Amino acid sequence: MDRETPRAGLAEALFHPRGIALIGASADPAKNNSRAQRVLQTSGYTGRILPVNPGRAEIFGLPAFPDIRAVPEPVDHAFLMVPAAAVPEAIAGCVEKGVRVATIYSAGFAELGGEGRALQERITAIAREGGLRLIGPNCLGLVNVTDGVPITNNAAVEAEALAPGGLSMVSQSGSMMGALLSRAGARGLGFAKIVSVGNECDLGVGEIAGLMVEDAATRAVLLFLETLRDAPALARAARRAHELGKPVIAYKLGRSDVGRRIAVSHTGAMVGADELADTFFRENGILRVDTLEGLVELPRLVLGRTPPKGRRVSVLTGTGGGAAMVVDRLGSLGVEVVPPPPAMRAALATEGIELSDSPLIDLPMGGGKGQYTRVLQEIVASEHCDAVVAVLGSTARLRPAQVNENILSVYDGSKPLGVFCAPQADAALGILDAAGVAGFRTPETCADALHAFLTWRGPRPLAAVAEHDWRAAAQRLAGFGARRLNEAEACAVFAELGIEGPGSRIVATPEAAAGMQGPAAVKLLSPDIPHKTEAGLVRLDVAGEDAIRAAVAELLDKAAREHPSARVEGVLVAPMQRGLAEVILGFRRDPEVGPVVMLGMGGVLAELKRSFCVRLAPASLETAREMVAALPELRMLQGFRNLPRGDVEALAHAIRALSLLACLPPEAVAEAEINPLIIRAEGQGAVAVDGLIVPN
Amino acid sequence: MDRETPRAGLAEALFHPRGIALIGASADPAKNNSRAQRVLQTSGYTGRILPVNPGRAEIFGLPAFPDIRAVPEPVDHAFLMVPAAAVPEAIAGCVEKGVRVATIYSAGFAELGGEGRALQERITAIAREGGLRLIGPNCLGLVNVTDGVPITNNAAVEAEALAPGGLSMVSQSGSMMGALLSRAGARGLGFAKIVSVGNECDLGVGEIAGLMVEDAATRAVLLFLETLRDAPALARAARRAHELGKPVIAYKLGRSDVGRRIAVSHTGAMVGADELADTFFRENGILRVDTLEGLVELPRLVLGRTPPKGRRVSVLTGTGGGAAMVVDRLGSLGVEVVPPPPAMRAALATEGIELSDSPLIDLPMGGGKGQYTRVLQEIVASEHCDAVVAVLGSTARLRPAQVNENILSVYDGSKPLGVFCAPQADAALGILDAAGVAGFRTPETCADALHAFLTWRGPRPLAAVAEHDWRAAAQRLAGFGARRLNEAEACAVFAELGIEGPGSRIVATPEAAAGMQGPAAVKLLSPDIPHKTEAGLVRLDVAGEDAIRAAVAELLDKAAREHPSARVEGVLVAPMQRGLAEVILGFRRDPEVGPVVMLGMGGVLAELKRSFCVRLAPASLETAREMVAALPELRMLQGFRNLPRGDVEALAHAIRALSLLACLPPEAVAEAEINPLIIRAEGQGAVAVDGLIVPN
Repeated sequence: MDRETPRAGLAEALFHPRGIALIGASADPAKNNSRAQRVLQTSGYTGRILPVNPGRAEIFGLPAFPDIRAVPEPVDHAFLMVPAAAVPEAIAGCVEKGVRVATIYSAGFAELGGEGRALQERITAIAREGGLRLIGPNCLGLVNVTDGVPITNNAAVEAEALAPGGLSMVSQSGSMMGALLSRAGARGLGFAKIVSVGNECDLGVGEIAGLMVEDAATRAVLLFLETLRDAPALARAARRAHELGKPVIAYKLGRSDVGRRIAVSHTGAMVGADELADTFFRENGILRVDTLEGLVELPRLVLGRTPPKGRRVSVLTGTGGGAAMVVDRLGSLGVEVVPPPPAMRAALATEGIELSDSPLIDLPMGGGKGQYTRVLQEIVASEHCDAVVAVLGSTARLRPAQVNENILSVYDGSKPLGVFCAPQADAALGILDAAGVAGFRTPETCADALHAFLTWRGPRPLAAVAEHDWRAAAQRLAGFGARRLNEAEACAVFAELGIEGPGSRIVATPEAAAGMQGPAAVKLLSPDIPHKTEAGLVRLDVAGEDAIRAAVAELLDKAAREHPSARVEGVLVAPMQRGLAEVILGFRRDPEVGPVVMLGMGGVLAELKRSFCVRLAPASLETAREMVAALPELRMLQGFRNLPRGDVEALAHAIRALSLLACLPPEAVAEAEINPLIIRAEGQGAVAVDGLIVPN
Repeated sequence: MDRETPRAGLAEALFHPRGIALIGASADPAKNNSRAQRVLQTSGYTGRILPVNPGRAEIFGLPAFPDIRAVPEPVDHAFLMVPAAAVPEAIAGCVEKGVRVATIYSAGFAELGGEGRALQERITAIAREGGLRLIGPNCLGLVNVTDGVPITNNAAVEAEALAPGGLSMVSQSGSMMGALLSRAGARGLGFAKIVSVGNECDLGVGEIAGLMVEDAATRAVLLFLETLRDAPALARAARRAHELGKPVIAYKLGRSDVGRRIAVSHTGAMVGADELADTFFRENGILRVDTLEGLVELPRLVLGRTPPKGRRVSVLTGTGGGAAMVVDRLGSLGVEVVPPPPAMRAALATEGIELSDSPLIDLPMGGGKGQYTRVLQEIVASEHCDAVVAVLGSTARLRPAQVNENILSVYDGSKPLGVFCAPQADAALGILDAAGVAGFRTPETCADALHAFLTWRGPRPLAAVAEHDWRAAAQRLAGFGARRLNEAEACAVFAELGIEGPGSRIVATPEAAAGMQGPAAVKLLSPDIPHKTEAGLVRLDVAGEDAIRAAVAELLDKAAREHPSARVEGVLVAPMQRGLAEVILGFRRDPEVGPVVMLGMGGVLAELKRSFCVRLAPASLETAREMVAALPELRMLQGFRNLPRGDVEALAHAIRALSLLACLPPEAVAEAEINPLIIRAEGQGAVAVDGLIVPN
């Protein structure tokens, strides 16, 4: 028991603990579990290394303890390598000992599902109760490279000579941590802190990234992500990183993940996990690379920089073909390759350097003595672009040292510069790497990195929302109780948010429709029959009182016959709505990124070739307007070919309003949809014809 | 004069000439123009090397000649390094001497435009007249690596140790030729023949690829393309390559080229150069890679192979994260990652190897002793997939020699295998390279190559077209003379191809509309007013004889007032056509790939978010049906949500019919369009409502 020793701070215990217990340490050098001690002993770590193994009194020259409780000195950090079944007891021991952080290498937990998940929940509960923070389980550990403190038995860490530097990295994939270290090492990148997070039962990517952001040695944070488990913490870390001028760069798997969909609403099926992740990264100011090598080659382009204002790049080359590959791909990524401005051309012409007005500044063979270098100097100093790409041809391979003279001699770092070497040019890349200038091995990664940088923006300001914006809706919703709302009830909640409803009435009998003239939509109300149109329980364009009465009678009769056990809540009679276009609005809580609002086109054609846009919720009115602008089909409503203009401003207001469902406490709404929202002519609003709310 | 010496065959003169003249050879080793002789002299070339330089009697120990005409021995190949202005005289000398091929390194021709283009035309004419074939100008030359005959002054060729092997390469970019040789060399690839084609004034990519395909040492042909200048020759080469079992692999710039558009028709603007190139490659059985490194890493996957039947890949890994990157990207490229079949799982289970039914076969840490290797053996031998990807984790870096045991010991080459190494693993890649197994350095290139292989199909059989299919249309078109046809005339030509017309009549006066009842579309006919709707010269849904007469009078009057100088050919009166959907059909001769047929959706929404499909023309009915299937919006007509079915078979017939315009001699039609083609209900056909033909 060591409770009297004051607990270390979390970052301190994580990266610079006073004592490290290695629970399950092995004395057999051939065993994986011996490695953690070996790498610690050779690292220069100045704290105490405390192997725990009931079968040994000594391991590799250090006293070993039978149990963590038997260790006589303070232990801030424990590294657990015992079998899964022994982990709960080891965790309990750590709690008793007053350990601050336990990093659990052991596998056999939630990654197996079922019993493994239960075991993980058990250890998490023990730790939480005892004030012990956990990393893992099923992780490879962590390394404080700055101070030489490896807490890991990763073979890669033992094999690689990790250089200290400004990058910190969090990886959800243990094996990719080693792969990335080897790739980064080959390019001379130095690291500050590295953490493999495994199953993230407690400390996750977001919280750890948050600690790294505050770390003095860390200048940028790299993330290798398979999923997002704690988006709000990561969002906070990214926003804080922006304040401190430290870029956060992510590679995330799941580009092709289209499986994770929600079936109940149309909008659920519209948006894949990857679009949501893209939105999350963009709105929180995180740079995203599309290529693995981008994670290694992008950092030098962005270290110490803030997001650019524009997305214009100037490309200078001594080899046409090599540069064309980069320009081609930049073009398909939507980056603007800009020609040199007339003033620059005029100035250079007085020195005998003639540039065309082509976007690609092509100086074959470097354009003769010093021209390439001179032009590079001008471009880097010019305001007409936000970044520069310099392409090198055979020189990079045949005379690599010329990189010093041609590029490094004039590059002052004032503007991001990426250098792509067309041939195999390891020596030239090495010179660039050593100088801290971003060198690129392939045109694809060069374009990927430039695109990531040029589309990088600061975190989007959080939408300003006042309680009175959503209070009435929350009260209305609470009044209905925690059940799936019928269409009229859903529209009533939307109306409280300021979204015009269909003006419908609910009738219980044909007689109650007296006086209604239509033309009306007549629809059975029942929470137990999901697809009313397909079930034949909707009649459209019903005109005249008699016809409306007859339709009501018919629907009630049909429901009673065909769905005898369904609860029938009446029949909805709503005036037919006409407009210029139909859209679908959706709201849901995504398991990865949290509440989001979606806009999609309605109608059959739109359904066959889906167009949609998604943003985090709540969204500001400005964000909602951006969403409207992002859908090509909605240009139809904004002065296209003399077609009548639609009320897109009302649409933007409706999007913002629906997104406010994110604010209703306590996460009251799981999912909502307006389908369709009909957009009327300019100035005449937009009307929610039908809707759906699923309480949480 | 050496006319009595028999001319060498083209391939012989190109790659294995009896004598090589170096016109403009320099005796100064620091000069670029000295390099060609130096590399030839050190290459082991056994023919005669004949420097031509009026100022020297001897260069580097060989007699030099003042003029090509003064060379006393047979010269099959001349390499020209003189300034552009001196090239015509040198070419004339080559003709007199009876040289077979001149390769022109000199720049200053069509790449400069204007006078340079005229100079290029002049030398081309001299050569053609004299039976001399040309490579270049503005090229870096060629290398016969098989026999050690370099005809080039490319510094890369001098610097790189080119290994002989089975790849031949044609590059339109001179600088990229060197870059590719260095990259290929770093991966141990061997070459047979290499040609830089420059401006292609005579011998182009297609003809040279055709010679390479017939070359015994060549097993595959790589193309680095900036554009297509002789698509028919390249198509022939690719089809011949398929017969001989030699894959042709292309990298082509222009993915983002959206500039090259034709303004006159809608379909011209729909299709970018890149979609056309894609179509060209696919229909001619050429593999296309999207990444530069793919050009170096794909060959080992396809050498000696024929196109696969399916697009299913099995992925085996010892590292989850590394494989997930490949699978993710394969998924987004539309490649099907298939799980091991039940029988295989059952068989392996009896050996104690338990596989899940997940598409990714993940054996953490290789799954223990030999499991990875055993499973690999099973997958390679199995019929359930068309290719295999094996992913290696830290082993590839820490114990590279294990590649021999884990992979090479059981891989029999019966099925394409790609090995992706997640860490930096140069030694492991080197072992794979040496064994001729496709190793991949990044997940992106691995997926790119697998996608290229799995979507690879043999050349599409040429559409069977008989003269009687198009003879009547040709006669009808010829009858109109070589002018832009009016709408009625265009539809008349389409009708001869079997496309139903609108049943319109042309009236010259209101009185001529007597008896017409409508509802009709009424449209002014004039070849001088291009956009009739925008000009207010179209009336739709005009019903009743009086109204039709009035509309005719109004249009004639309006045209006379507002377009007094326009020729008016009458007024078209056509019955209004109704159907289930509108499409646009187009035909044009693309400057790169030749005649193509296009299908696009009609209507405003479709225009805002364009869907289209393009194929080479003429197209078979089968191809036309594929085009219909390729447009998501047309699913609406094929049993979607109980919507009525449309006559998509009539649409396919119309597509095929329009594509026959490609056959009309002598390339009679430059461009044609049907806009809209209205598709009626199933069995009721499709009708061309309006059309356009631009003769060539």
